[in-house]
Amino acid sequence: MTAGDVPRPPGRGPKVRAAVLAATLAELASGGYATLTIDNVARRAGVHKTTIYRRWPNRERLVADVLGEHITTDFTIPDTGCLADDLLALARSFVAWVTSPPGRMIFTAIYRDAARFAEIDEVRRDLFEYGPRRAKQVVERAVQRGELPAGTDPVAVIRTLIAPIHFQLTVVSEAVDDHTAQQAADVALAAARAGVFHRPHHR
Amino acid sequence: MTAGDVPRPPGRGPKVRAAVLAATLAELASGGYATLTIDNVARRAGVHKTTIYRRWPNRERLVADVLGEHITTDFTIPDTGCLADDLLALARSFVAWVTSPPGRMIFTAIYRDAARFAEIDEVRRDLFEYGPRRAKQVVERAVQRGELPAGTDPVAVIRTLIAPIHFQLTVVSEAVDDHTAQQAADVALAAARAGVFHRPHHR
Repeated sequence: MTAGDVPRPPGRGPKVRAAVLAATLAELASGGYATLTIDNVARRAGVHKTTIYRRWPNRERLVADVLGEHITTDFTIPDTGCLADDLLALARSFVAWVTSPPGRMIFTAIYRDAARFAEIDEVRRDLFEYGPRRAKQVVERAVQRGELPAGTDPVAVIRTLIAPIHFQLTVVSEAVDDHTAQQAADVALAAARAGVFHRPHHR
Repeated sequence: MTAGDVPRPPGRGPKVRAAVLAATLAELASGGYATLTIDNVARRAGVHKTTIYRRWPNRERLVADVLGEHITTDFTIPDTGCLADDLLALARSFVAWVTSPPGRMIFTAIYRDAARFAEIDEVRRDLFEYGPRRAKQVVERAVQRGELPAGTDPVAVIRTLIAPIHFQLTVVSEAVDDHTAQQAADVALAAARAGVFHRPHHR
């Protein structure tokens, strides 16, 4: 009856997905999370809304997928053989992402207009848990090389790297730039070297 | 005509102010910023709404004053003669405040339901600018004592102390406790000692 009931030709899936996620991001950018509807996303993407509902049960899943898409494609994990360089590269990637158009849109959407929606909590948490989980290998390799004390908590180091950038962006409302990235990397490095992230019961 | 038009008896001012600010905090806690109205605050405080409007032109000013009240009364700036102890005391004060009932209410109000209101931006910024401005004397005294390199940026040290606590509270949604305070203080201390916050053009 609707376009969604017609069998899809092979290979259309990824294109539809890309169009729907791009439309979601554009809707987030123009009206924010509060006014985001499946109807509007469908109209903008040029697909029938049942096509969207078949893949995404609700708008939270759409937003979560937009996030997932940008996090996995926008970040590469550095492996320079030197912790200082790896941390700086990570901090710069994060700064580049949050100051890029999609990063800015996502950030504004989940910290500004969507902050009051409890259903977005998971999305927000994922954004800052998936990244550190992937990035912690940078710290683990530094421990293996003997650059950091054994027992250093790798996720704590990565969170320390991200926290001041996040703070400056969401609280201080000052420009986030290369100095922000450098200072964040320097802080995490100095603290890690000093043994601040040593887990007490680890040997 | 209204209660507000009758000359106030002397000494009633502070009581009215306290009642209105307490009612504002209670309204924030029960319904959030989105449903906060001068009418509701007046009803809860047992004062006429013109009494409120005479002192506070709008709800943002009310919220700003609630914040100001709690920030100035809840924080004392330590002066133990030792930077490590002072930083730990500051971090613990902040953790104690954000985990206290009023602190939790204010935090939830300005980061969750009020996040989408642009008019609350100033309140949010003030909360995290007034504190560091007052607390930076702790770092300045440490520089004078020779505990830290001359030219250390004191506000950067205090922000580094607060950022991970804020991050854990707003993003990671993990319990903020004494370990959080200790790690935050240790990170800020290690980085400050390593000269990370040295301002390049200072002598």
